[in-house]
Amino acid sequence: MNAMVTLATANVTVVGLGLIGGSLALALRPHVGRVTGVEIDAPTRRLAYAAGAVDVATPHFAAGLAETDVVLLATPSATIARQVGEVAHLRPDGCLVLDVGSSKEVICRAMDQLPAVFQAIGGHPMCGKEESGFAVATADLFQGQTFILCRTARTDEAAEATALALVAALGARPLFLDPRQHDELVSLVSHLPYFLSALLMEQAAQMAATTGEPVYAVSASGFRDTSRLAGSDPDMLRDIARTNGAAIIRRLRDHRERLDALIALLEHGDDAAVRAWLAARQQDYQAYRKEK
Amino acid sequence: MNAMVTLATANVTVVGLGLIGGSLALALRPHVGRVTGVEIDAPTRRLAYAAGAVDVATPHFAAGLAETDVVLLATPSATIARQVGEVAHLRPDGCLVLDVGSSKEVICRAMDQLPAVFQAIGGHPMCGKEESGFAVATADLFQGQTFILCRTARTDEAAEATALALVAALGARPLFLDPRQHDELVSLVSHLPYFLSALLMEQAAQMAATTGEPVYAVSASGFRDTSRLAGSDPDMLRDIARTNGAAIIRRLRDHRERLDALIALLEHGDDAAVRAWLAARQQDYQAYRKEK
Repeated sequence: MNAMVTLATANVTVVGLGLIGGSLALALRPHVGRVTGVEIDAPTRRLAYAAGAVDVATPHFAAGLAETDVVLLATPSATIARQVGEVAHLRPDGCLVLDVGSSKEVICRAMDQLPAVFQAIGGHPMCGKEESGFAVATADLFQGQTFILCRTARTDEAAEATALALVAALGARPLFLDPRQHDELVSLVSHLPYFLSALLMEQAAQMAATTGEPVYAVSASGFRDTSRLAGSDPDMLRDIARTNGAAIIRRLRDHRERLDALIALLEHGDDAAVRAWLAARQQDYQAYRKEK
Repeated sequence: MNAMVTLATANVTVVGLGLIGGSLALALRPHVGRVTGVEIDAPTRRLAYAAGAVDVATPHFAAGLAETDVVLLATPSATIARQVGEVAHLRPDGCLVLDVGSSKEVICRAMDQLPAVFQAIGGHPMCGKEESGFAVATADLFQGQTFILCRTARTDEAAEATALALVAALGARPLFLDPRQHDELVSLVSHLPYFLSALLMEQAAQMAATTGEPVYAVSASGFRDTSRLAGSDPDMLRDIARTNGAAIIRRLRDHRERLDALIALLEHGDDAAVRAWLAARQQDYQAYRKEK
């Protein structure tokens, strides 16, 4: 299948009906021929039916792929990399494979290995919530958000056109990145913020538990915003740590160097140097908000 | 003046009409006899007049204190500590002194030194914005928020009653803390989040500047929330670093120890140990949100 899939009539299979997969199904169903959901959790399948997210839902990967034109893999990244290989066996006639996993290098390298009869392109919508599961899925999750696309050895013009049509149907803005470049960038703007948030939460929770002080009563919106990501799904984060660990560790080491420099500045720096550092961070923030 | 001040007829002077002082003036004016603003910046005085925040505004500290019953010091903490001493000279007949500075130990120790004719109590409303100045002040800033009160050697029952009436007029919830206890707690839930946010912003800005990569285009709501505090007023943060530096440095050192343990876990820990750490952070977050 090397022709461009016409999205309006395509059979689309979404594998994994969590926050992202469920939101994909909800958003895409009005724009495609049929949506099949593959989901091992029976209550989630019932929720997806009830919400009108899917025409059909099945716990069986093979059954869900049988007649599909487009497979959208929305499981954790390590699972996606494995499922890409399974698709090759289950659909020897080929189909279009897309994914929405957080780590792109491991997935795109698996896509490279697909037989030539397949088309494949990696994807990552830059949106999420600290809650997870179909219950918090919404059709407008991707609206106005960046949707990263990563070309693979199985990306031809037709696959790219279908992926762009899909991103447009979601209301998202496409951004093409190399998989390795993607993994470096998200380790900085997505994974590092999570780990800093989790470390802050750990520190506050331990003080609350060991001292009995009114830690949370004293906290306000600053703490709430900086700790929010600590509430993220641990299975998702474990998958991210497993599939993008090297980049994350580099970011954390970089953070430690900056932290040491900051401690030294606060301990030994003069007032003007401290103010200069603080003012530079405010300028960094303002430059970022000007751009985004 | 050892009687309780009746707020409804009191002359209240707010010193410093920035975000917090301006919001105090706006919120209190309907509840008190008269509001005088002391503010050295002429455009800010004009804004405060135009917004109906003050009956009178003056650049002169002495003039603003001349006939006041209640002085509310809303300048940076180091300035407040100095101004407490100045009030003693300018108003030898005494008055009630309150403040809203971020660091309470340095201020409450200055209040302890006031002559016995004074009443004084430290305060700290736990709210703020990453923007500063009268332009972003609002009357409802304190609504539903925690307002910390710290007793001093000059706090008698009457002073406490007036402070509580003032907190009630703001719509805030009072919480009494020892000044040192306050400084420890805010170093954890307010100052540490700021510095982690600023370090994250520094790291992202440097990658954006040195590589030209689309760092901010890739970023989403997680980065936005965790970096927001980096936009805070550098003069306010410099003041906080100056007046609560020791506690902040202890928090940053604690953070570094946790960071080192996390890096070791990600490098050498098995999958189950990583997941256990991530799940514990989610539980910490859920326990915090259950309480607040």
